[in-house]
Amino acid sequence: MKAAMVQDVAAQLTEIGKAFYARGWVLGTSGNFSAVVSRDPLVLAMSPSGGDKGSLSANHILLIDENCRVVGEHHAKPSAESLLHIRIAGQLGAGAVLHTHSVWSTTLSDLHAAAGGLNIEGYEMLKGLAGVQTHEHKEWLPIVENSQDMNALSVSVGDTLRSSPHSHGFMLRRHGLYTWGKDLDEARRHIEILEFLLEAIGRTKLMSDKL
Amino acid sequence: MKAAMVQDVAAQLTEIGKAFYARGWVLGTSGNFSAVVSRDPLVLAMSPSGGDKGSLSANHILLIDENCRVVGEHHAKPSAESLLHIRIAGQLGAGAVLHTHSVWSTTLSDLHAAAGGLNIEGYEMLKGLAGVQTHEHKEWLPIVENSQDMNALSVSVGDTLRSSPHSHGFMLRRHGLYTWGKDLDEARRHIEILEFLLEAIGRTKLMSDKL
Amino acid sequence: MKAAMVQDVAAQLTEIGKAFYARGWVLGTSGNFSAVVSRDPLVLAMSPSGGDKGSLSANHILLIDENCRVVGEHHAKPSAESLLHIRIAGQLGAGAVLHTHSVWSTTLSDLHAAAGGLNIEGYEMLKGLAGVQTHEHKEWLPIVENSQDMNALSVSVGDTLRSSPHSHGFMLRRHGLYTWGKDLDEARRHIEILEFLLEAIGRTKLMSDKL
Amino acid sequence: MKAAMVQDVAAQLTEIGKAFYARGWVLGTSGNFSAVVSRDPLVLAMSPSGGDKGSLSANHILLIDENCRVVGEHHAKPSAESLLHIRIAGQLGAGAVLHTHSVWSTTLSDLHAAAGGLNIEGYEMLKGLAGVQTHEHKEWLPIVENSQDMNALSVSVGDTLRSSPHSHGFMLRRHGLYTWGKDLDEARRHIEILEFLLEAIGRTKLMSDKL
Repeated sequence: MKAAMVQDVAAQLTEIGKAFYARGWVLGTSGNFSAVVSRDPLVLAMSPSGGDKGSLSANHILLIDENCRVVGEHHAKPSAESLLHIRIAGQLGAGAVLHTHSVWSTTLSDLHAAAGGLNIEGYEMLKGLAGVQTHEHKEWLPIVENSQDMNALSVSVGDTLRSSPHSHGFMLRRHGLYTWGKDLDEARRHIEILEFLLEAIGRTKLMSDKL
Repeated sequence: MKAAMVQDVAAQLTEIGKAFYARGWVLGTSGNFSAVVSRDPLVLAMSPSGGDKGSLSANHILLIDENCRVVGEHHAKPSAESLLHIRIAGQLGAGAVLHTHSVWSTTLSDLHAAAGGLNIEGYEMLKGLAGVQTHEHKEWLPIVENSQDMNALSVSVGDTLRSSPHSHGFMLRRHGLYTWGKDLDEARRHIEILEFLLEAIGRTKLMSDKL
Repeated sequence: MKAAMVQDVAAQLTEIGKAFYARGWVLGTSGNFSAVVSRDPLVLAMSPSGGDKGSLSANHILLIDENCRVVGEHHAKPSAESLLHIRIAGQLGAGAVLHTHSVWSTTLSDLHAAAGGLNIEGYEMLKGLAGVQTHEHKEWLPIVENSQDMNALSVSVGDTLRSSPHSHGFMLRRHGLYTWGKDLDEARRHIEILEFLLEAIGRTKLMSDKL
Repeated sequence: MKAAMVQDVAAQLTEIGKAFYARGWVLGTSGNFSAVVSRDPLVLAMSPSGGDKGSLSANHILLIDENCRVVGEHHAKPSAESLLHIRIAGQLGAGAVLHTHSVWSTTLSDLHAAAGGLNIEGYEMLKGLAGVQTHEHKEWLPIVENSQDMNALSVSVGDTLRSSPHSHGFMLRRHGLYTWGKDLDEARRHIEILEFLLEAIGRTKLMSDKL
């Protein structure tokens, strides 16, 4: 990987942090973002553990390998959720992984947990997901039970990705949304689309008995 | 058409993109915007297919003719929905057409689809629509079933515009809002007014049994 | 009145326009703002008719007298609602009058119209209203039926101000909120407080049967 | 305490004011913020009484001692709620205290007042609170009845802090949220986390019977 490419990715990650923070999607120290900067061996540029995502700067971004070790010298600690990013990038070949922690994903991942996921169908906005050609597409957004055991959670996520190979994202219960893409632009588009759809579905349910 | 006029329109379209994106009305790659730069023959300056509307720049804007062909040299592809813009500009003589894809228009276009539209009456905000003099005005906002067959959808839209000649906009089901105006300023005003009214009506319905 | 004072007021009015537009309180061409620049004879500096309040600039601001005539040379037309501003400034001696057209004031002015107003009591935020010392204060926010007959509406508003002499504002049904203050800073504070309270009351009612 | 340290704290407080104002958490003259600049004797740098928190500047910040007297020369008046800040900083050893007055904290502090507080459990976002290691943490957010008698209120708050020693914040009924931290960064993180959780809990309750 080239230094210039890493710098470019770091600049994109900080821009994403500011934009998502302004929308209230990564409050506190929530959320994390990564992009693949080398495929073989796998290296991710990633936001560090615990920082405020609204004031990320490029020098906060660290490089981690497939075993979640920091590559090169960096004082920051990798996020505990790096294992999920590595899993998604490795298993799916995704070029970027984004996690938001919005009110709507927290709420709907809780209310639909018993169903194991949320079905999204019939919305034009779905066409913004990679490979989707029609609003009649059925998107299944699985919900994975949250856990502090990151190895176990990574295995659960891997199982979910295998059993729902056509999904563009998943939710962790009461924890938020994960999505990915071939690059950061696509992953960011997927976040905006899925966050929009969660709010639209939530508000529609709220109003459905009021007409 | 003059180059200076096209540049001015392109600058307005990029400004509209940033403003609507900030309000969450054109997330993902949703939404599209156009303005007539020549009437005879008809030429529209228009946002391209699939771009992020929050970071439009003037050189993204392309020119299309009444057959949806790109005028001049431009690498971008016209949006599939260009046909609707051409239909509205041609059939109604509108000078500008704007399409937003907000949560409230997505939700209400779904919940009111069976009624074929939404009636809006008694709101002072209606007076901001062109030609409306009183809040007692009755605005009928038709809802057209969504489709990926753009030729068929364009015909449906044309029929709707003829059968509701006094409407200032329409909704596509689970897809959002279209409105227009004599120029971009008027069309933008119409978007703000209709988006406001949709949210006001939605919230009023939600609360109507709580007093 | 001094030119420097008029310029200062115009700058404050444009700043208020931008801030309220960002919060979605004056979409379309809704809302209007004024400040007294001379008491005897009465002269108001005021936002013009029909403009977009998010892009006001100081040279849009016009001066009007107690008969709603433009003072000096200005191409803009006074807003039809200027009569209400003159009424409030004259009858109450207010130094500034602000009108917002938010979703919450539109919705609650409709749902509470039959009761003639909305009672607000027990909120700490009330202490930001001029002269209020405790959250136990009872604020009555009258609702006046909307009308396009501005002379008749001005008389209705005058009657309401007389019959509710302790109120800090009123609502026009499905039209929004009016408040005032000794100067623009106080009137702006009153808008923020009343808009906050309307949203808090609305959300509390929505949730009150859900615990 | 050093002048440079006081200046740095004042700059942080003004930045917090702008950010919270943009989110609608400190409208009107609501909210107040403080940070300990000397422990022995106790001195707090604090936002003044009654100002607009969105336009704080560093020279508005005043220094107060443990008896709520202004330290040094400053024309501003300490906020009536300074006593609560002094109580929290003194009794808990907190380095910073922040109070927001949001719609969700106002609403939920009212609806849950009879229960004496709100239990928050099972949310990943809880892990952003100091010392919390798992989403399975149970956070009790006590609600204290509001009062204009600041000495009595300070005693009530002191009792609440003693009876709920593991809580990271409390609410005043219909008045908002208080939290604290070892420094301003931690206290600000706590505000973002608790405001997020209040909104998530509120929206979940609203939707809980709609699935």
